[in-house]
Amino acid sequence: MADINSPLEIGVTTGPIRGSRKIYVESPNFPGVKVAMREIALEPSSGEAPLRVYDTSGAYTDPAATIDIAAGLAPLRRDWIVARGDVETYSAREVKPEDNGQLGPDRSGGVPPFPNVNTAPLRAKAGQNVTQMHYARRGIITPEMEYVAIRENLGRKQLKEALARDGHDWGASIPDYVTPEFVREEVARGRAIIPSNINHPESEPMAIGRNFLVKINANIGNSAVASNVANEVDKMVWSIRWGADTVMDLSTGRNIHDTREWILRNSPVPIGTVPIYQALEKVGGIAEDLTWEVFRDTLIEQAEQGVDYFTIHAGVRLPYIPMTAKRVTGIVSRGGSIMAKWCLAHHRESFLYEKFDEITEIMKAYDIAYSLGDGLRPGSVADANDEAQFAELYTLGELTKRAWEQDVQVMIEGPGHVPMHKVKENMDKQLAACGEAPFYTLGPLVTDIAPGYDHITSGIGAAMIGWFGTAMLCYVTPKEHLGLPDRDDVKVGVVTYKLAAHAADLAKGHPAAKLRDDALSRARFEFRWRDQFNLSLDPDTAEQYHDQTLPAEGAKTAHFCSMCGPKFCSMKITQEVRDFAAKQNQPSTGFIAADEAEKGMAEMSEKYREAGDLYIPAAE
Amino acid sequence: MADINSPLEIGVTTGPIRGSRKIYVESPNFPGVKVAMREIALEPSSGEAPLRVYDTSGAYTDPAATIDIAAGLAPLRRDWIVARGDVETYSAREVKPEDNGQLGPDRSGGVPPFPNVNTAPLRAKAGQNVTQMHYARRGIITPEMEYVAIRENLGRKQLKEALARDGHDWGASIPDYVTPEFVREEVARGRAIIPSNINHPESEPMAIGRNFLVKINANIGNSAVASNVANEVDKMVWSIRWGADTVMDLSTGRNIHDTREWILRNSPVPIGTVPIYQALEKVGGIAEDLTWEVFRDTLIEQAEQGVDYFTIHAGVRLPYIPMTAKRVTGIVSRGGSIMAKWCLAHHRESFLYEKFDEITEIMKAYDIAYSLGDGLRPGSVADANDEAQFAELYTLGELTKRAWEQDVQVMIEGPGHVPMHKVKENMDKQLAACGEAPFYTLGPLVTDIAPGYDHITSGIGAAMIGWFGTAMLCYVTPKEHLGLPDRDDVKVGVVTYKLAAHAADLAKGHPAAKLRDDALSRARFEFRWRDQFNLSLDPDTAEQYHDQTLPAEGAKTAHFCSMCGPKFCSMKITQEVRDFAAKQNQPSTGFIAADEAEKGMAEMSEKYREAGDLYIPAAE
Repeated sequence: MADINSPLEIGVTTGPIRGSRKIYVESPNFPGVKVAMREIALEPSSGEAPLRVYDTSGAYTDPAATIDIAAGLAPLRRDWIVARGDVETYSAREVKPEDNGQLGPDRSGGVPPFPNVNTAPLRAKAGQNVTQMHYARRGIITPEMEYVAIRENLGRKQLKEALARDGHDWGASIPDYVTPEFVREEVARGRAIIPSNINHPESEPMAIGRNFLVKINANIGNSAVASNVANEVDKMVWSIRWGADTVMDLSTGRNIHDTREWILRNSPVPIGTVPIYQALEKVGGIAEDLTWEVFRDTLIEQAEQGVDYFTIHAGVRLPYIPMTAKRVTGIVSRGGSIMAKWCLAHHRESFLYEKFDEITEIMKAYDIAYSLGDGLRPGSVADANDEAQFAELYTLGELTKRAWEQDVQVMIEGPGHVPMHKVKENMDKQLAACGEAPFYTLGPLVTDIAPGYDHITSGIGAAMIGWFGTAMLCYVTPKEHLGLPDRDDVKVGVVTYKLAAHAADLAKGHPAAKLRDDALSRARFEFRWRDQFNLSLDPDTAEQYHDQTLPAEGAKTAHFCSMCGPKFCSMKITQEVRDFAAKQNQPSTGFIAADEAEKGMAEMSEKYREAGDLYIPAAE
Repeated sequence: MADINSPLEIGVTTGPIRGSRKIYVESPNFPGVKVAMREIALEPSSGEAPLRVYDTSGAYTDPAATIDIAAGLAPLRRDWIVARGDVETYSAREVKPEDNGQLGPDRSGGVPPFPNVNTAPLRAKAGQNVTQMHYARRGIITPEMEYVAIRENLGRKQLKEALARDGHDWGASIPDYVTPEFVREEVARGRAIIPSNINHPESEPMAIGRNFLVKINANIGNSAVASNVANEVDKMVWSIRWGADTVMDLSTGRNIHDTREWILRNSPVPIGTVPIYQALEKVGGIAEDLTWEVFRDTLIEQAEQGVDYFTIHAGVRLPYIPMTAKRVTGIVSRGGSIMAKWCLAHHRESFLYEKFDEITEIMKAYDIAYSLGDGLRPGSVADANDEAQFAELYTLGELTKRAWEQDVQVMIEGPGHVPMHKVKENMDKQLAACGEAPFYTLGPLVTDIAPGYDHITSGIGAAMIGWFGTAMLCYVTPKEHLGLPDRDDVKVGVVTYKLAAHAADLAKGHPAAKLRDDALSRARFEFRWRDQFNLSLDPDTAEQYHDQTLPAEGAKTAHFCSMCGPKFCSMKITQEVRDFAAKQNQPSTGFIAADEAEKGMAEMSEKYREAGDLYIPAAE
């Protein structure tokens, strides 16, 4: 990526993902609603139709789209929002220097403001509520819900195999087929959210809920010691290319406001933030100096920009703070520790808790979803599932119900660091305490001893808790605990979480999840190397690894691989076994029928020997 | 690594692992039995004793040891073996050209024979049985069992914390403290094995069993298309440096015999092989041409060299083969497919099954353990837990009992590719069918869609099945399904499996497992960066990642990191919370007592404000 001194020099990766193309599936019910998907073509020899996969990558992978970072993406949802007749434009809050950090914006680092900022944001008309939950509860199916339904199905209706359910869903209610009405019901009862700030019309609707595909989030953002806006926009585009369903901008330090504007205008996925980070910058980094007024002003600022969900640490209540004193790692959430410091300094209950209903009032005017923060999450396996953590969780459950009273969408953040035997208790308690509001966990890491590999320690916990019912998994990169993730780390984090989320879908028995595994396994078995690469989560890496041992183009069509070589290929031998079984019309027999099968094999044996050796020469 | 043309040019990595030193703990019962461990020193400011960790790295990490690859390691166990008086030396089987592959040895690639091969191997005297299981069943505690007991405890007796048990062990019987008698009992009843060929006296005794620490295996070996012996010796040393408990040499193609000799003479960990691979080479790669005589000859050859465990695919019975015909990926085990081909071609029951007791006779004369191969394991999630797989498992259970009749040690190999919801069934069925013989699984991979990341897809399954009771986890590298692992892949595979095994120990409630997590978490909380790196599974990578963002030496002592920067550090704020709580003598309160705690905090609040801001300047 080129470093930048003007917005036009922000570069991002564009073009189709290898071996696939962008398609748009039109809604039969809502004219103009076209749902983006990715279609992976398979070799003609496979006799298989292209496989459709969920696509988070936005216009960046559409060769027909014009990408102009300085102009932003097309406002996909704008007409839908305006057509509902319940919003109005108004004059935006004026951007102040301190919105970009206590020292104001730093233009020297190549961070210009976004050009053509919209100074007339939308908000709900007086007395109106513009949340998806509000519409859902009134029985209205929005274009957003329609989009989600088509998107989640991935055309599974056409696929007979999709209906072979196999999984253990721990009490979830995953339908064979997702109808718009199902989406509406799930949103109405709070079991799913569609984060969709009316000022972020560029976002493509997606659902986070236990009965939908498991989603993943990628965190990006600059910090006081490193990063610049071009890198962050690039990381956002890069993370959605590999499958991030939402992105959180966790920027601190300077240029916070501008960085967020660049990201939002170019993001087709919902953007989440932790507003207390910016509020703290506005008061010079002194937690004690935070006030409700500064915080409220920050919420409005971010609401107008289009942030889709806010992490609010309203569960860090004053009485819970001493519960953390004897922990091995105390409070590890940044937001949690800021609020703890504020509470202790003032010896007062948290203003986030006390002003919760006022916060909700603001959020419903823009349809911002809550991501109720787990400020007291454990930062080590020693602190997992302790009283502080669960005290906060019960409070988050109470706040969920208060938010729902105003029809504001809610998800609940979860840990953190949890050994395997304590993972399920987190899910069970969350479901019970929070009325089945979607759970959104960071990992959890199942051991503390592998810094540098915490995408893996956390991927283990993420796959498990995703299976148990967590709706969205917040990624962890290899740099966790050590440094800021770069572009490569972001990709590894996203792919790791994508595979964990998919493993969860598979184990839950999601009707369509297995299609991709089976297609890839068939390609593997039939030595369709290109199909194997293209069907994988990361075709570039798969092909690169293959080529390190067998770089020749011919090896891509060879009926062997470098692990065994041509003489020793078990897949090839199996194909021979199968061919003979097929010729004999010999069905797969039950264990009990094994003796009978044996009888039918004498003839097979004879023919097999006649056929001789099917090996191909090793010299190839 | 330099390429080699003579044995002396084989280079391996030596020297201590960063921040730690080799120690030897002497047995109080057996003079001369000294157990290698690694001790990680912590910063004096921590006030903590050095942490002892399990050490598989052999003499290579001992600066006092002289490493001479052409001479091999010292024969640690030789005296113990000879002292039992039940072995004799004899003239070794003569090495034939075809032992090094059908074309004989290839000296051009820099593969000389190992110098000074021992031509007088040991075997049991006529009528004797030299297996650890045999001794155990007669009530004898061997030095090997003593070594294992000391090794497993890691000095946990001294550590009070170790006795705080926390975990869910799914019915295992993990003792607070491992006595030699406990080791003997577990070996006697077949729940643990100590692989220890009497011709591999260089190996340091280790146990594989559900009630011991979860172990990991690394596969190495050249193939017909790539690799050379220097690389393989280097990979062996490299893999044990990072924690491989056993190594399997899966070489095929040429130089098989010589490669194995180099590896065995330099390996302090048990070495496993799949003898059918070499036998197949001896018959020109034609599975149908395999005979019991060729196979038997190969067993003797490898027994004399010192292989500690043999994978024998004796459960691939003729009647089960048709059960694989309708699978998505048929038979993916190389050994399994070779035997399937043989069975079909001859329409006969497998000679491995029919000659099983004769094989056992051979193995008991050298104390080679069975690793009963899962030749019909699933190669895709679609094929997981099917009739072919379980038919074979029941046969492996039957064979386990037959091996035990001759006091030969047994472990059972397991899958493969299994979605999460089907993992536990594998463990449950294995325990029931195989009389609690140790389970040894490959992963399992919980999804098929991530080639290039299959160390992770399989690490998820491995952690889970390790928790459920699997005794050893066979690693998978990022190159799985794509190519041959190189040195870097081996390390990533080993560290991934080490963390999975540790996560399993932690979840099972192994009494000492948590010590390392807690030590690392304390170091993290107190910003002891060096301790955090050194306590991790891979100190080099942890430090390198840290330095990518904050390379300055000063940053290693800084009380912040690059994620948050100095202004925003949650750990630092927590430390302040804790300091105040401590000053107030405010104990960690129960959830119910929260109101009381609140009362005591007014004074704390006052003092807190007086103390002012404890931040350090961002410029540092």
